[in-house]
Amino acid sequence: MRTTVGIIGAGPAGLFLSHLLHQHGVESVVLERRDRAYCERRQRAGVVEHGVAEALRESGLGERMEREGFRHDGIELRFDGRGHRIDFPELTGRHVMIWAQTEIVKDLIARRVADGGRIFFEAEATAIEDIETERPRVRFTTAEGVDEVLECDYVVACDGFHGIGRTSLPEEVVRTYDKTYPFGWLGILADVPPSCDELIYARHERGFALHSMRSESVSRLYLQVPADTDPADWSDDRIWSELATRFELREGGWKLETGPITDKSLTPMRSFVAEPMRHGRLFLAGDAAHIVPPTGAKGLNLAMRDVMLLAEGLRAWQESGATAALDTYSDTALRRVWRAEHFSYWMTSLLHIDPDGTPFDRRLQLSYLDHIAACRPAAAQLAENYTGLPEV
Amino acid sequence: MRTTVGIIGAGPAGLFLSHLLHQHGVESVVLERRDRAYCERRQRAGVVEHGVAEALRESGLGERMEREGFRHDGIELRFDGRGHRIDFPELTGRHVMIWAQTEIVKDLIARRVADGGRIFFEAEATAIEDIETERPRVRFTTAEGVDEVLECDYVVACDGFHGIGRTSLPEEVVRTYDKTYPFGWLGILADVPPSCDELIYARHERGFALHSMRSESVSRLYLQVPADTDPADWSDDRIWSELATRFELREGGWKLETGPITDKSLTPMRSFVAEPMRHGRLFLAGDAAHIVPPTGAKGLNLAMRDVMLLAEGLRAWQESGATAALDTYSDTALRRVWRAEHFSYWMTSLLHIDPDGTPFDRRLQLSYLDHIAACRPAAAQLAENYTGLPEV
Repeated sequence: MRTTVGIIGAGPAGLFLSHLLHQHGVESVVLERRDRAYCERRQRAGVVEHGVAEALRESGLGERMEREGFRHDGIELRFDGRGHRIDFPELTGRHVMIWAQTEIVKDLIARRVADGGRIFFEAEATAIEDIETERPRVRFTTAEGVDEVLECDYVVACDGFHGIGRTSLPEEVVRTYDKTYPFGWLGILADVPPSCDELIYARHERGFALHSMRSESVSRLYLQVPADTDPADWSDDRIWSELATRFELREGGWKLETGPITDKSLTPMRSFVAEPMRHGRLFLAGDAAHIVPPTGAKGLNLAMRDVMLLAEGLRAWQESGATAALDTYSDTALRRVWRAEHFSYWMTSLLHIDPDGTPFDRRLQLSYLDHIAACRPAAAQLAENYTGLPEV
Repeated sequence: MRTTVGIIGAGPAGLFLSHLLHQHGVESVVLERRDRAYCERRQRAGVVEHGVAEALRESGLGERMEREGFRHDGIELRFDGRGHRIDFPELTGRHVMIWAQTEIVKDLIARRVADGGRIFFEAEATAIEDIETERPRVRFTTAEGVDEVLECDYVVACDGFHGIGRTSLPEEVVRTYDKTYPFGWLGILADVPPSCDELIYARHERGFALHSMRSESVSRLYLQVPADTDPADWSDDRIWSELATRFELREGGWKLETGPITDKSLTPMRSFVAEPMRHGRLFLAGDAAHIVPPTGAKGLNLAMRDVMLLAEGLRAWQESGATAALDTYSDTALRRVWRAEHFSYWMTSLLHIDPDGTPFDRRLQLSYLDHIAACRPAAAQLAENYTGLPEV
């Protein structure tokens, strides 16, 4: 089999890349080891940066997002029993969209299929070869168990942290950076309308909590828990009670709506970067190259930004043979990646209780939160990063 | 002996308080265990916040500062071989004054003496008694070795971290918070004109360095060194060579001027807060209640702000018996203290190499510095804090 761009992974990054390339007249093939239903079901992030939402709209994928997603003009920071709203348009002129990654994936698959795109589900990439030549190849096994070869001009690995993309780079060229956290997020989906219209990032002495939503009838809520937590140890009652405590307002006037919990899972917290994001004719995008803790809502957005850069670079290459954008891809993408790594770490440190932290550390958190509530530049810095910096 | 306000310590806080009280018509006595020459010689901080410089001017102490000090409209952040200037007036409308604490002390002593103020040098306070009554007393030993008692309406302890002020509060009411750092600053005074007009805060892989000045012919420079460093282990050559390395610019165009080193000392790094800052009729101000690492240049400024609050409170009390300002002193002062604690920790973490840090941590530092250079709110946040927030 032969194509221009071989894409490994039908997550939002791989699918969006394939879609953008199609619009630019560049051929691609997507190989995905899971089946379509699995891809469309995976629960992940739900906050789309202003600029990424723009890119979705511009590429014709905004319709359902506009209709069923929510435009959010702010978030609430809740701490010390008080709430403080960060007003995005007022501080940055931008907003974010609440639109689940899983919905983006559904739209992208439907659109690629309608456009005659080639996505092979249950096709497991097993090796990426000859990336230092002009004819790299991806070996894969089809859904039928047949070994195949995909010959390409370029390979883009959007195959996540555990994929073969990153490990296919020569060991001696890769530098990795990482950080683990002694906590994770216990996340639930519940059949109950959101308790309020916006996201609430709550810093409580017992730990962080996040109020968010998937639709007008489905809430998405998270609790900071120890990293080794088994979600099965948390009864529904215990979850609701803990959430209510962490969101409590000193003055009252707030009620956490409860309802049937339909999903419980643990989101681990990790920071990770691999450099460079390109070697020869193999590119890495999204989680294959970098992981952020979910606090800053940057994982999905970084992945989308990576492939937006790649789509432009591959278009330029096909149109004129120019490789400038492809040659600078790694450096350009990594500037945004490190910005997001820092912001995600910063938001995480600001809002989570470090089990190894001291009373001094906890007072500094509160002073910083007070400062963000009182000082416009401090709030603007958060809002600039959260809504997504246009240029990095 | 009897007075209205008994002040322990003739550092800038105690002296400024005594001066302000005199202007408000409130009597005070200052007890200082060292001699006058020692007080006037002590090398300490040299950056005066906009609002504190205003207060010095308003109280008639601005003349020599205006003539011999320097108005600084910015600082340079230097990292990764590049320099980025933070423009204070443009970002905040404020500036700072470079004016050494030791000069402020000289002016204050001269002024108190000229005004007939009572400062007892070599008078060691040994006990603070009856602070829960309306007649607290300070026991002290005079320069002549005579035991005396100072009877007051209020006692203000401006006697530093090791003074008797803080330990005179009942143990059960005091909460303390602290943090130590695995590094300190090796500071030098050198008889050489400053290498440039502004302060340079340099973050280098080998550690932090600070370029500052005391006058047109005296430079003040600092190097991050391990906390247990003996300054005697650092030859002049080694100091200049290390400073030159840490200030180096990739593009060149910068030269560190060198000259005879007249003083070498180690500044330890510590964060510390004691709460509350008042019990009964005893108040704490300055280092007696809180210590910051010197990176944010906040130690002197916090001390001056503490006594500015106290002077107002004591004036109101004497004029009308109103105690509202005195009653809220601790809470009001502590808001600024915690803001400065956070900022000082933040500047320290941003610019120092943590010997226990990882490559990931060091890349986050660089990403944050890049962000401060590129994003106005990030720079403004630094400038707001550095020049001194008007309200906290």
